Amino acid sequence: MDERRSQEASGAGGAAGGAATDPRAAEAAPPSGPSTFRWIDGGGVCAPLGLRAGATACGLKASGKDDLALLALDVPAAAAGLFTQSALPAAPVLLDRALLAGPAAAAGGVLGVVVNAGVANACTGEPGLDDARAMGRAAAAALGCRPEQVLVLSTGVIGRRLDMAKVQAGVQGAAARLRREGGAELARAIMTTDTKPKEAAVAVALSGGTVRIGGAAKGAGMIHPDMATLLALVTTDAAIATEALRPLLAEAAAQSFNRISVDGDTSTNDSLLLLANGAGGIGLAGEADRAAFGAALTALCRRLALAVVRDGEGARRLAAVTVEGAVTEAEALAAARCIATSPLVKTALAGGDPNWGRILAAAARSGARLSGADLRLRLARGDGEGEATGPWLSLVEGGVATAFAEADAAALLAGSDVCFRLHLGAGDAQATVWTCDLTAEYVAINADYTT
Amino acid sequence: MDERRSQEASGAGGAAGGAATDPRAAEAAPPSGPSTFRWIDGGGVCAPLGLRAGATACGLKASGKDDLALLALDVPAAAAGLFTQSALPAAPVLLDRALLAGPAAAAGGVLGVVVNAGVANACTGEPGLDDARAMGRAAAAALGCRPEQVLVLSTGVIGRRLDMAKVQAGVQGAAARLRREGGAELARAIMTTDTKPKEAAVAVALSGGTVRIGGAAKGAGMIHPDMATLLALVTTDAAIATEALRPLLAEAAAQSFNRISVDGDTSTNDSLLLLANGAGGIGLAGEADRAAFGAALTALCRRLALAVVRDGEGARRLAAVTVEGAVTEAEALAAARCIATSPLVKTALAGGDPNWGRILAAAARSGARLSGADLRLRLARGDGEGEATGPWLSLVEGGVATAFAEADAAALLAGSDVCFRLHLGAGDAQATVWTCDLTAEYVAINADYTT
Repeated sequence: MDERRSQEASGAGGAAGGAATDPRAAEAAPPSGPSTFRWIDGGGVCAPLGLRAGATACGLKASGKDDLALLALDVPAAAAGLFTQSALPAAPVLLDRALLAGPAAAAGGVLGVVVNAGVANACTGEPGLDDARAMGRAAAAALGCRPEQVLVLSTGVIGRRLDMAKVQAGVQGAAARLRREGGAELARAIMTTDTKPKEAAVAVALSGGTVRIGGAAKGAGMIHPDMATLLALVTTDAAIATEALRPLLAEAAAQSFNRISVDGDTSTNDSLLLLANGAGGIGLAGEADRAAFGAALTALCRRLALAVVRDGEGARRLAAVTVEGAVTEAEALAAARCIATSPLVKTALAGGDPNWGRILAAAARSGARLSGADLRLRLARGDGEGEATGPWLSLVEGGVATAFAEADAAALLAGSDVCFRLHLGAGDAQATVWTCDLTAEYVAINADYTT
Repeated sequence: MDERRSQEASGAGGAAGGAATDPRAAEAAPPSGPSTFRWIDGGGVCAPLGLRAGATACGLKASGKDDLALLALDVPAAAAGLFTQSALPAAPVLLDRALLAGPAAAAGGVLGVVVNAGVANACTGEPGLDDARAMGRAAAAALGCRPEQVLVLSTGVIGRRLDMAKVQAGVQGAAARLRREGGAELARAIMTTDTKPKEAAVAVALSGGTVRIGGAAKGAGMIHPDMATLLALVTTDAAIATEALRPLLAEAAAQSFNRISVDGDTSTNDSLLLLANGAGGIGLAGEADRAAFGAALTALCRRLALAVVRDGEGARRLAAVTVEGAVTEAEALAAARCIATSPLVKTALAGGDPNWGRILAAAARSGARLSGADLRLRLARGDGEGEATGPWLSLVEGGVATAFAEADAAALLAGSDVCFRLHLGAGDAQATVWTCDLTAEYVAINADYTT
C-alpha cells in the first residue's frame, strides 16, 4: 500500500486547482515500498496454493442460508491472529488466543479453520467455551487432524448458545463440499448483516518467485450490535514462520482494519487470522521481499477493510479522513478517529453537507495539539479505494472558511467516495481513518432490531 | 442531590421483585447531605435578589425571535466559570476566561452578562475576539459599568462573524427591557435548536436564613453541530467569595453538566457561569451551610442538564446509565460514558429494545475492569428527574441473560424515562451518566442542516 500512499501524498499538492501545495504531505508519507503485486480477479481465501473451502447451511441462520464453513489446509500453516480488545471476548476468541500461543500453531501446525455465522457464542460463559472446543473437535475429526490444529470463528447474535447438533451436522456438510473453488462459498457463509461477500487476492513477486495472498472478511465494522462483528481470514502460500508472521499482520492491520470505523463500537468477536502454509515453497529472502510482501498484505487487508466500511448498515458514502500536520502520529490518529466517529460529521456526510465546522470541532476535542490559526481543511473526490482523486477543494485556510462555492463542495460530496484532509498546523505526523455516513436507515435498522 | 442519590441506592435493592439486593449500592452512595432546599415554581435566573434581565430580537436569528439578552446585577457579583475543553474555544470563551482570571471578577465585580444566540462567534480568529470585546463594551455602556465587569456568551452557527450593528442595537433594546421578571425572556432568547426554554430555581435554608439559586440553560448537549452549544447561567444571592465559589461550581458540574451526553460531541462554546452577588447578605457559615448550598446547586444544575438531554434533537427518551461495582469512579464513569454514547445502545433505546448485549459490549470496550462472570444488568422506569422509580427488572445475572419476559422489558422501555444499572463485579465505585435515544429524526435534522 505504500506506493499508493506516496502517490496520494504527491498528488495532494500537485493536482488541486485553488488549493495551496503542501510540501509536508509528501515528507510525512511513509517510505515507498516496491510495487510488486497485482490483484487476482475474483480471488479469495483459496487463491493461494494448498487450500480448500466448503460451506453449508446447518440452521444457525434463520434465513436458511449457508452458515457454517470450513477451510482446509493441505499442509500445516504457521498462524498469527489479532483479536478484539473487548473485556468480554467471545468463546472462540478465547480458544484461538490459547491455540495461537500454544505449541501446535507456533510450530506451523494449523490445518483447518471452522467458522459459523448466526450465533456469536459470546457472553455464554464456560458452557460457551466448551461449545467452541467441541466445534473445533468436530472440525478436526472431519479434517483428520488434531483439535489444537483447528482455529474457530463465530459471528452472530450475542448471548445465545450454539446448537451443537446443528454445528456437528454443518461441519460434516461443509467437509463434504471442500474444494479449491470454495473460497466464494466461505465468504458468503460467514456473512451476517453484510449485503455482499468480501473477498480479495493478490499475487506478489518475490525474489524466489510468486506467492499469493487471499482473504475473506465479513462484518460492517462495528456496525451491527448483536451481529458480533468483524471476521477476516487471510491466507498465503508463502513460507513464513510464526515469529515473522506476527509483525507482518500487526503492521497490515494497523493500516487497514484498525483504521476503519462504522459506528465506533467494538465487538466481542472481532478476529483477524493470517495463515501461511508455505505450499509454494517460497519464503521471504531479505528485507526487499519482506517489504513487498508487507505492502501486498496491507493492500489486501485495506481492500477488505474498506469493503466492510462501504457495506456498513445503511451506509451510502465512504469517507477517508486524513489528519496531517499533527505533532505525533498518535495525535493524528486520535483526531482522525474523533472526526470519523462523530455523529455530527457522519450525519453531515449522509446529507452531502460540507460542514467544516463539525470537522474542526471534532478535531478540537480529540486532545490532539493544533494551531487554530493554521488549520486547513480540503475535500476531494475518492477513487473507490479510499484515496483521493482529482483536485482538492479548500474549505478552510488559516482556521477560517474560504470563499468556496457550496455547489463545488456539493458536487464532490455527491459521490459515493470522498476524502477529507485536515492540517493541524502543529507538526509533521499524519494518519488516515476510513468511515461511512450515518443515515436514517442505520437508525431504523438498529432501533428495530431485537434480540 | 445527595439525599436523592442515597434514596435511589437504598431503593435499588429493596424494591425489585426478582432482582437480587445489592449491599454495595448503598455503601457506594455518597454521604447524605441535608435536604434543605425547595424548588421555586416558575423560577429562573432572576429568582435570586438583585437581578434583572431583558431580551430583544436584533436580527441574529433568521426566525426573527429574541436573540440578545442582558442580565444586570444591582450589586457586583463574585463569579466562577467552566468552559469547553475544545482546543478551538470560541471568542467569548477566551474573553470570559481572561476576565474571570482578572482582578475585577476575582474581587466580586461582575455587574452584567450579555448573551446572543444565532451566531457562535467561533472559528472567527482575532477579529472575532475583537467583536466579543466590543459586545462586552456595548453592554457595559448600557449598564453603566466597566467592560471587565461584563461576561459575554454566544451560541449559534460556527464560523460566522457577528453583525456588530445588530449587536449594538440589540444591547440597547435588551437594556431597555431589563426587569425583575425578565428571566424567562432571557431563557427564551438564548435558545437555538432548543424546543423549549430551560429554567429552574431553588430556595435554600442556611443557618443565617434563606438564599436563592436560579438558572437558565440552552442547548441540547452537544447535539447540534453548528449550534455551538451548551450555555448555562446560574445566579445566587448568597454571599460567597470567588475562591469558595469555584469548587462549589466544579462539584455541581461534575454531577450534572459533565454527566450528560447527547451525541458525544463537545462544542466550541460550552460555558457554565455562576454568579454570587450576596444581595441577601447571607453567606455560608460553616460546613453544614456549604453542604446544603452545594446539594441545592447540584440539584439545580442537574435539573437544567437533564432538561438539555431531554430536549436533544429528535430525542424521545431519557436514560440514566449507572455503572456500579467498578474498581474506581473514573472507570465507572468511563464505562457509563461508553454506554451512553454508543450509537448501538442509543438506537436500541430509540426502538425500546432491551438490548443488553449492546450495553455489555459497550462497557467491555471502555477500558474499565470487569468480571465477566459477575456482570449484572437491571432496568427500571425513570422518575422524570433521572432517577429510578418502581421495581428493577433483572436482564443479566452472572454475565448471562436472565429469563426475563420481553413484554416486561418493553413495558419499562415504553416510557420517556428509563434507568439502567450495570454492576461490573470488580469493585465498589459507581457513576451515573444521562443520555437520550438516537432517532431517525436526529439524523434527518443533522443530515439536512447546512451552514
